[in-house]
Amino acid sequence: MLNYRDGLADMPLYDTREQDWNIKVNANESNIGLPPLVEDRVMTRLSRIAFPRYPNEEYDLLCEQIGEAYGYRRENVIIGNGSSEIIEKVFHAFGGNQEHRIVYPSPSFSMYAIYAAAADATGVPVPLRPDYQLDVEAFVQQVNQSQASLAVICNPNNPTGQILTVEEVEYIASHISCALLVDEAYAEFCEHSVIALLKKYPHMMVARTFSKAYALASCRVGYMLAHEDVIDMLAKTYMPYHMNVPSLVVADTVFQMRTEFEPQIQMICAERERMQEQYQALTGLTVYPSHANFLLIHYAQAEALNEDLIRYGIGVRSFGKAPGLENMLRISIGRADQNDEVHRIIKAFVEGHS
Amino acid sequence: MLNYRDGLADMPLYDTREQDWNIKVNANESNIGLPPLVEDRVMTRLSRIAFPRYPNEEYDLLCEQIGEAYGYRRENVIIGNGSSEIIEKVFHAFGGNQEHRIVYPSPSFSMYAIYAAAADATGVPVPLRPDYQLDVEAFVQQVNQSQASLAVICNPNNPTGQILTVEEVEYIASHISCALLVDEAYAEFCEHSVIALLKKYPHMMVARTFSKAYALASCRVGYMLAHEDVIDMLAKTYMPYHMNVPSLVVADTVFQMRTEFEPQIQMICAERERMQEQYQALTGLTVYPSHANFLLIHYAQAEALNEDLIRYGIGVRSFGKAPGLENMLRISIGRADQNDEVHRIIKAFVEGHS
Repeated sequence: MLNYRDGLADMPLYDTREQDWNIKVNANESNIGLPPLVEDRVMTRLSRIAFPRYPNEEYDLLCEQIGEAYGYRRENVIIGNGSSEIIEKVFHAFGGNQEHRIVYPSPSFSMYAIYAAAADATGVPVPLRPDYQLDVEAFVQQVNQSQASLAVICNPNNPTGQILTVEEVEYIASHISCALLVDEAYAEFCEHSVIALLKKYPHMMVARTFSKAYALASCRVGYMLAHEDVIDMLAKTYMPYHMNVPSLVVADTVFQMRTEFEPQIQMICAERERMQEQYQALTGLTVYPSHANFLLIHYAQAEALNEDLIRYGIGVRSFGKAPGLENMLRISIGRADQNDEVHRIIKAFVEGHS
Repeated sequence: MLNYRDGLADMPLYDTREQDWNIKVNANESNIGLPPLVEDRVMTRLSRIAFPRYPNEEYDLLCEQIGEAYGYRRENVIIGNGSSEIIEKVFHAFGGNQEHRIVYPSPSFSMYAIYAAAADATGVPVPLRPDYQLDVEAFVQQVNQSQASLAVICNPNNPTGQILTVEEVEYIASHISCALLVDEAYAEFCEHSVIALLKKYPHMMVARTFSKAYALASCRVGYMLAHEDVIDMLAKTYMPYHMNVPSLVVADTVFQMRTEFEPQIQMICAERERMQEQYQALTGLTVYPSHANFLLIHYAQAEALNEDLIRYGIGVRSFGKAPGLENMLRISIGRADQNDEVHRIIKAFVEGHS
């Protein structure tokens, strides 16, 4: 027997291969894609890559650009292979020896528990209220009682869609002394970000992604803003050349041209409001108010409904028996015609089973 | 003070930003680049990417293609962000608790010591002989005496260029019972690979890269072949979607069209032989026989020579005070005109200082 790292055998294996869907609204991807102007520019930039060379200035240039956009410097920015890798590295940086405790809400992004295990940390989930709001006071207490090394919130929260105000996040930041990571993967779809708080709270980090609002899940690029000292420590978890040039160049182009995405982001938010009303009108279905690019829906026969959707080639996200998410389906907001089609199938099923 | 992981503060920070060189022969990159036919096909493939979608079948398709080329299945292949990330993950998988010992030759790829530290393992370097040959018997003894969890060899060895025969590698594989990683980053430039040994030795792994012979350092793609059980355990060290689509698609195209690279690989090997003779002719200079795309040169005034090369805009690799590499320069093999120019400057310096 080979002598593997303790605990490695217990880590899960992932199968991320997807079937071909007619309508794919299961991963909160963009169903619109890059604006044509952006795509043209992306292809031009890709054609100029020096393929044989190791990455050089591309990383720093994107850090600089991101930092500047938010009123920070490039030393306040770190870039990873998706914000998911950055979050994994943050867990690693504050993990170790099972003694380090990492506190996060539940239900939330399902990978937090796995990142905690991978980081040899003890994950401490704090249950959301039945309406999926976070009890901020209880969260702060749990963080302090646990003597946590890291507290994590996802804002807006995935997969529940609910949001904390800037004041609530500041309340958390000012009542804990450990590191605080705010995962803002869906922030472009909501009214506010807490990035401005970073100036005041040097123990705070904000992670962002290009995978959702910027239609770039294929490229695996995310970034995080924080105090320079925190970024320096996080950078130590990365080996040299962790980012590739094609993805950096595409993300750089998209970030430069990000105003081009405004119309589609506004459209997605408008569609979310429209679809929320439509789903609310269906008997037996509960829709949760969402500040992201998806809706979470409770329905007693969610599993049978999901089977029906699959028959029509529609992929939504079912959570199976995940705690707090029983009989829930998460539906990403797509184009209007796709949203209508998904709603049509669900309406027919619900009316046929009531 | 934030409560970071033990040991993280001691890890190094990297500055990989490079100056603009007239001739860049410091990182064993290709100075030739993608063959025009390959570059055309690469751009076509890039133009067809579904940018908003998470990676899907691209990973499996490349694994399948690589596996097939060597007579294995896709279950025998893992792909990472450069073979360096795969090696880092192998160290992680066999590391932990400082009790796990990882044995590797020294001097060799300088990152092995850092990967060992990052993996909470104890690195055990085995010194090469003065002629830079590995004492295979001493290596086996050290692995067994240390009760190592992992033994690593780089073949051909970077930065010394020397190579172990298939029989020597098999001798190691058959005399140790822990995991054995053979880092074949430069294998395309030498006469043999040990990939065929994998069928016989299920505790063996062979890592390869697209960064050297396939002129793709920008894309950060490497792969590893091993027994399915080993690949499955290694896969657990990776979180989902660790690879991005643009890099996978470019690597896939390059691998499909790899015969197009044969002429330039042969040219580089021929140039290596030609340059070795030319450098040998210079008094006071020692050139080591190389089986890779670089030459290692010893010269008493290596540091002053390097300063001179920098003045001419020529970047070679100097190892400073790295143990066993004092007064050594590593020079990648470039195009004939570049090799001649580098040689001309070195010859003038050496003749002016003898």
